[in-house]
Amino acid sequence: MFGEMAKMGTINKERFVLFSDGVFAIILTLLVLDLKVPESLGLAGLRTATPGLLVHAGAFFVIGMAWITHHHFLEHVERIGSNMLGYNLLVLFWITLVPFGARTAAEHPYDGLGAAIMVASIALNLASLLLMAWFGDYESVTHDPIMQPLRRRRGRYFLAYLAIALIVTMLCFDSPWFGYGFLMWGASVLWVAPPSVVHARLVAEENG
Amino acid sequence: MFGEMAKMGTINKERFVLFSDGVFAIILTLLVLDLKVPESLGLAGLRTATPGLLVHAGAFFVIGMAWITHHHFLEHVERIGSNMLGYNLLVLFWITLVPFGARTAAEHPYDGLGAAIMVASIALNLASLLLMAWFGDYESVTHDPIMQPLRRRRGRYFLAYLAIALIVTMLCFDSPWFGYGFLMWGASVLWVAPPSVVHARLVAEENG
Amino acid sequence: MFGEMAKMGTINKERFVLFSDGVFAIILTLLVLDLKVPESLGLAGLRTATPGLLVHAGAFFVIGMAWITHHHFLEHVERIGSNMLGYNLLVLFWITLVPFGARTAAEHPYDGLGAAIMVASIALNLASLLLMAWFGDYESVTHDPIMQPLRRRRGRYFLAYLAIALIVTMLCFDSPWFGYGFLMWGASVLWVAPPSVVHARLVAEENG
Amino acid sequence: MFGEMAKMGTINKERFVLFSDGVFAIILTLLVLDLKVPESLGLAGLRTATPGLLVHAGAFFVIGMAWITHHHFLEHVERIGSNMLGYNLLVLFWITLVPFGARTAAEHPYDGLGAAIMVASIALNLASLLLMAWFGDYESVTHDPIMQPLRRRRGRYFLAYLAIALIVTMLCFDSPWFGYGFLMWGASVLWVAPPSVVHARLVAEENG
Repeated sequence: MFGEMAKMGTINKERFVLFSDGVFAIILTLLVLDLKVPESLGLAGLRTATPGLLVHAGAFFVIGMAWITHHHFLEHVERIGSNMLGYNLLVLFWITLVPFGARTAAEHPYDGLGAAIMVASIALNLASLLLMAWFGDYESVTHDPIMQPLRRRRGRYFLAYLAIALIVTMLCFDSPWFGYGFLMWGASVLWVAPPSVVHARLVAEENG
Repeated sequence: MFGEMAKMGTINKERFVLFSDGVFAIILTLLVLDLKVPESLGLAGLRTATPGLLVHAGAFFVIGMAWITHHHFLEHVERIGSNMLGYNLLVLFWITLVPFGARTAAEHPYDGLGAAIMVASIALNLASLLLMAWFGDYESVTHDPIMQPLRRRRGRYFLAYLAIALIVTMLCFDSPWFGYGFLMWGASVLWVAPPSVVHARLVAEENG
Repeated sequence: MFGEMAKMGTINKERFVLFSDGVFAIILTLLVLDLKVPESLGLAGLRTATPGLLVHAGAFFVIGMAWITHHHFLEHVERIGSNMLGYNLLVLFWITLVPFGARTAAEHPYDGLGAAIMVASIALNLASLLLMAWFGDYESVTHDPIMQPLRRRRGRYFLAYLAIALIVTMLCFDSPWFGYGFLMWGASVLWVAPPSVVHARLVAEENG
Repeated sequence: MFGEMAKMGTINKERFVLFSDGVFAIILTLLVLDLKVPESLGLAGLRTATPGLLVHAGAFFVIGMAWITHHHFLEHVERIGSNMLGYNLLVLFWITLVPFGARTAAEHPYDGLGAAIMVASIALNLASLLLMAWFGDYESVTHDPIMQPLRRRRGRYFLAYLAIALIVTMLCFDSPWFGYGFLMWGASVLWVAPPSVVHARLVAEENG
């Protein structure tokens, strides 16, 4: 009976992962709906469409980056408890705001509001992932003896990133370029050093 | 031959679950399309966007709550028969109306129509889940000896919730705040006592 | 080597199924985007929204019905060859036109165009499913000895349905009610006699 | 420890595939949102809607063709390393631009911009797939001894296709019919000779 009750609180990891992936995939693709048909024709139309295309590309890779981080976190999780559903909804909620920020930025590219919404959404997405990592009811892959210290260390990096992101959010109201630059920096860091590579390096460091 | 015929009526549970999850994930993310770009700029724009953002957040967590309930139900189901497809379509249908309610509420926040649509959709979603639980052709996890009494008990809670929800739907036409309050209450109850925890407690009570 | 080459042409059934289900799930939920916020408030607004809601409900269950049919077909298929991808794209293509028909019907409910598009899309969807069943490179579940005669018989039913649907499509330009009635009839037949039940009865008949 | 570290960099292939499929499925279905309700009624309305329907059908099968190619590539891949996530995002990014091109083409069918965007997106999608095939960190199905020479050969076909596509993109600004013709040619080639059949033939030739 007790084994049964314990099992009650466990969630099918695959379903959890696919649901999250579904939300990321949809958000990525909804971005295209905000691309407006240019009023001018031919090559002139392409020039008119360029700012929107750049914002589209930026938002696409920012959401992709959030997906890769989420993906990496779940690769190391084995058993998922019932409170993870709530935390995960919170993680996904912030991501759904990125297309709203992108649309605002595409319409008023020189105003800071769109950039601020995008930066704040990503920051709160990471913060919620951190909350999930700290308070979520899950078990890491059991044969990873140094997961615990890593979790604490990664936490510190995340907190630093979060603090910087909130400062950048405010700076956006001065100039949107703080926000655009920050998002481009984030995406390129992820390209050069994806979470799995960072993780492997941290594992090596911990082992001395 | 008879074993074969019996198998004909059985549906692949995984496909059933993924299809439902897909619908929930898409509905959750379509909400963002209703966020309008504010006309004012900077922080003033943020203030203009706030009511829409609150409705977005509310609808997001209400749909998330319906997903968690649906998820929990299916965790305890093992074999799925062919009439479940129809009942499940009914369950999903009501959920697709939530974004319509949210859009209406975001445009006329002080009118009751949007709130009424949201409350009624959730209530009818739960009612359809109840119909599926009562008349659906499925088998619960076999090694759960007290599933039957639980199913009856949970049914009573659902019926009570449904009656309350329909009353609240009507009250919305008096003031939308009945609806907003009800949805917030529902989401917070779910946060404090997710279905899996309630289930575990009911199992314990049944065992005396 | 030959075994390898044969395997080249085989497709992962699960991926094939999930992709199709994804398209159905998205089409089902995109319908909600066509529900317009009513201009009047309160209960009057509900009355304004009713025709749109009815069309939404109709299209939802028509697409659901097409999904159940597609689902049933694939339940009996085991190995999928490479030309199935092309046929399946054709099957899915017609389904993507249903929301267009629904939108047209919701805007001009007393004109036949919307109903005609919906009826023709469903008919061509079934016709493509039939083409896939006839010319597709797949293998049915091997331990079903009477699959072959069944396939032929079901084909005849489909052809009859297709002929009726094309006649109904033309009648829609006389009066949309031919189309609306036909779609309601189709959905209720499916509710009373889902494909898996029909299949079981046919199996019993073949066995005498 | 080293085995563990190596595993860190490996990604669950199923999750990778489902995420990509999700993006393709959504993009395919978002196309329907661009079909405008015709202003005229009855059969006249159908005539008004025809150009939009043709562009819709074209874009649908072009994206389907990109999906089949992506699908085929992944059928032959077994282990997926961490840098594949980044390359795959790039592959998917270009696909998200196709509905934008389709919308532009549907509004200005006699201007080359929409056709140019569609052709360029498909070309850059294939180019990114090629980059992924060259620099991605994956392992092909191990029991396919001639995968290596094939990969090189297929690469050459892809490069030729890419060069042609970029030339066609430029020609679109002369006349959109270069683009429309090219896309129709591409879709029909794929119908006659799907990647899995081409692959099987190449395997036979190599063994020649």
